[in-house]
Amino acid sequence: MTYGELAAARLLEIAEMSEAGPGVTRLPWTPEHRRALDTISAWMRDAGLDVSLDAAGTLVGRTPGMVGKPALLLGSHQDSVRSGGRFDGIMGVAVACLAVRRLREEGVRLPFAVEVLAFADEEGVRFPTALIGPRALAGRFDPAVLDMKDAQGASMRQAMQEFGLDPEGIPALVRKKDEVIGYLEAHIEQGPVLETEGRSLGVVTAICGISRYAVTFEGETGHAGTVPMAGRRDALVAASRFVAAVSEAATAIEDCRATVGQIDVKPGVVNAIPSEVSLTLELRAPSDEIRRDFRSQAMRRVQEIATQVGVAVRIEQTYEQPAVACDPGMREALSQAMTASNLPVVAMPSGATHDASAMADLCPAGMLFVRCKGGISHRPDEYADADDMDDAIRVLAEAVKSIGSQEVLASKVDRRAE
Amino acid sequence: MTYGELAAARLLEIAEMSEAGPGVTRLPWTPEHRRALDTISAWMRDAGLDVSLDAAGTLVGRTPGMVGKPALLLGSHQDSVRSGGRFDGIMGVAVACLAVRRLREEGVRLPFAVEVLAFADEEGVRFPTALIGPRALAGRFDPAVLDMKDAQGASMRQAMQEFGLDPEGIPALVRKKDEVIGYLEAHIEQGPVLETEGRSLGVVTAICGISRYAVTFEGETGHAGTVPMAGRRDALVAASRFVAAVSEAATAIEDCRATVGQIDVKPGVVNAIPSEVSLTLELRAPSDEIRRDFRSQAMRRVQEIATQVGVAVRIEQTYEQPAVACDPGMREALSQAMTASNLPVVAMPSGATHDASAMADLCPAGMLFVRCKGGISHRPDEYADADDMDDAIRVLAEAVKSIGSQEVLASKVDRRAE
Repeated sequence: MTYGELAAARLLEIAEMSEAGPGVTRLPWTPEHRRALDTISAWMRDAGLDVSLDAAGTLVGRTPGMVGKPALLLGSHQDSVRSGGRFDGIMGVAVACLAVRRLREEGVRLPFAVEVLAFADEEGVRFPTALIGPRALAGRFDPAVLDMKDAQGASMRQAMQEFGLDPEGIPALVRKKDEVIGYLEAHIEQGPVLETEGRSLGVVTAICGISRYAVTFEGETGHAGTVPMAGRRDALVAASRFVAAVSEAATAIEDCRATVGQIDVKPGVVNAIPSEVSLTLELRAPSDEIRRDFRSQAMRRVQEIATQVGVAVRIEQTYEQPAVACDPGMREALSQAMTASNLPVVAMPSGATHDASAMADLCPAGMLFVRCKGGISHRPDEYADADDMDDAIRVLAEAVKSIGSQEVLASKVDRRAE
Repeated sequence: MTYGELAAARLLEIAEMSEAGPGVTRLPWTPEHRRALDTISAWMRDAGLDVSLDAAGTLVGRTPGMVGKPALLLGSHQDSVRSGGRFDGIMGVAVACLAVRRLREEGVRLPFAVEVLAFADEEGVRFPTALIGPRALAGRFDPAVLDMKDAQGASMRQAMQEFGLDPEGIPALVRKKDEVIGYLEAHIEQGPVLETEGRSLGVVTAICGISRYAVTFEGETGHAGTVPMAGRRDALVAASRFVAAVSEAATAIEDCRATVGQIDVKPGVVNAIPSEVSLTLELRAPSDEIRRDFRSQAMRRVQEIATQVGVAVRIEQTYEQPAVACDPGMREALSQAMTASNLPVVAMPSGATHDASAMADLCPAGMLFVRCKGGISHRPDEYADADDMDDAIRVLAEAVKSIGSQEVLASKVDRRAE
């Protein structure tokens, strides 16, 4: 059995730790989370790691006996969306455990500790927040989130206490920067790029920043029969030109993504000219500069179109999240490991947010994408192949080895060793 | 007081015959309809007409003593939409009564009878059908509509019987074609053309035909961050290109109108690529040829766009109503009357449907449009000016006179007189 096949078997097993219903539903600080932690603890011990649970509910497996040594962190999240798949998040935990086991079986001795982290909550499904585990480590924990409530009215504080955690201990989880070498996360791509290019793995260049806007066009309604075309101020014609223009413009910019996902029309009847159209616009790009440039371009375009069609336009920003560049050293370690494994290096941005984006506030962060079938995620039919996971385990193990030999990191290790 | 001022006063008075609430709500075969008929009967008698109520609920005022003579019909409908205005429909009845009174006061003797008709139901608000009065006269009455039910579960048959009518007598209302000279209807424009052109009246060239379609674009959803623009099959991008293209194409064709009034997106969330978009497309044109040509053009375009964007498209026709050309003789009579009244002749199509479209199945039909403020109708603030209604009364009276002198009509009158 390959490491990849073992990962596949483990992911099948842990997928059973789910609420009833299609696919996997495993929310943080629930009985399913508890059962999953027991299983992940076994994976960690199997890799030779000491296991502990921190105050944020992150399960931590650490190389024994490396007291005071800086640590290289590996990991991802244990939770899923509702009716999700069995790879998103948890695959990164499984792959990290098997990479550490592989290093141990190879007899590799590292000059630093290795930790595998299984974060409680990345999806933000139970509470309207997420990433509490990595934010705690990075010192970006906001105690106000503990008062947020789930659909049953339980606060996050209550949920964590009932799980046996002490939320008051979260601020103390913050790591000193010089005790952390970096963070590496393997994750399914959740997109179609690797499958299209026929590659098992990709190195993430950056986690895209996100801007979201509510755009409202206000024209004038009228009878669809009696108002000539020339005199119309049709809000949907303006909105449609905008949607088409934004899509065309984003297609022309590498790695830029623009999506109008929602549109509402008033009065919304077959024989009335639309008076008001509201739509959502989401922009994502691997650099804030690209996103800001594109935003300026889109905002100019929307004003031009509004003027042409004779409608008013209101734009309200509803969300903003900056881009996070992956660390060049971590990218290089992953790329070298791929080359060493005879895998061509595919570099690509991550359009989705991951634990790594919060970990980047603490330390150099890198991500390895694993091909997934049809680019599908967050669905029961989400799938990654055992052979691809085997590649990921090998590359992650090789990257850990190569990080030990990189000068920039070695200096930090040496300094700590003094 | 001018005839126009009298019309304005009468329309204020009859607007009180309404359900409670904003504006006018007067549905067919209701207590409000009953009260309105009493008032319209008084208008008809004031014009010297004999009054009767036919089996379809149409109030008929006819020149007394012209037994066996063919009749020129004038009129419109008494009913309103919910929370409508005080001009749509009922203004045509008021103007017709005053035109007849004016002819009488001028001492004009006509070689034919004149009838003023106040139809019960043109708006189709109470029952999912309309135009029962004119259809009965034209022999196009479908007895099946009597079983249609209103929101309270009353059938049209019951509603008419409770109003004191005998619906079984409707088929007998059909008029012989050689007993009818023509039909003239004055109606507010319900659009902005006359106001824009600074004219009080317009001669209608045709009542537009209507085609309605349900158009569905089927693409593929995906994460708005992880799927690159180039690989998307975004149903909303396809739909938007189509809306923009249809609007542009319709603007280039005189008197053609294309409206997308409704649009629905699935899954309809900010961060998911739209997989399915359904929209309504309505086409109107004064000739079936223009509408068919435009439809073909739109259908070709939608296929092109679907192919470009990589989505599938389904098109289902949901409604079809042919165009009705106004009678050249009736148009000429109205135009001559406008010229005689020193009013420039504005010819224009009607984008909305009217009683005249059903009357055209019986006899030559013509329509006179009256300017309305802001092109607004079907709202409490619907408004037509007393001076404009005065023009309409004069022109309608002049047109009735001129029809008596037209050769084509004279021959029919002569033949009947033999």
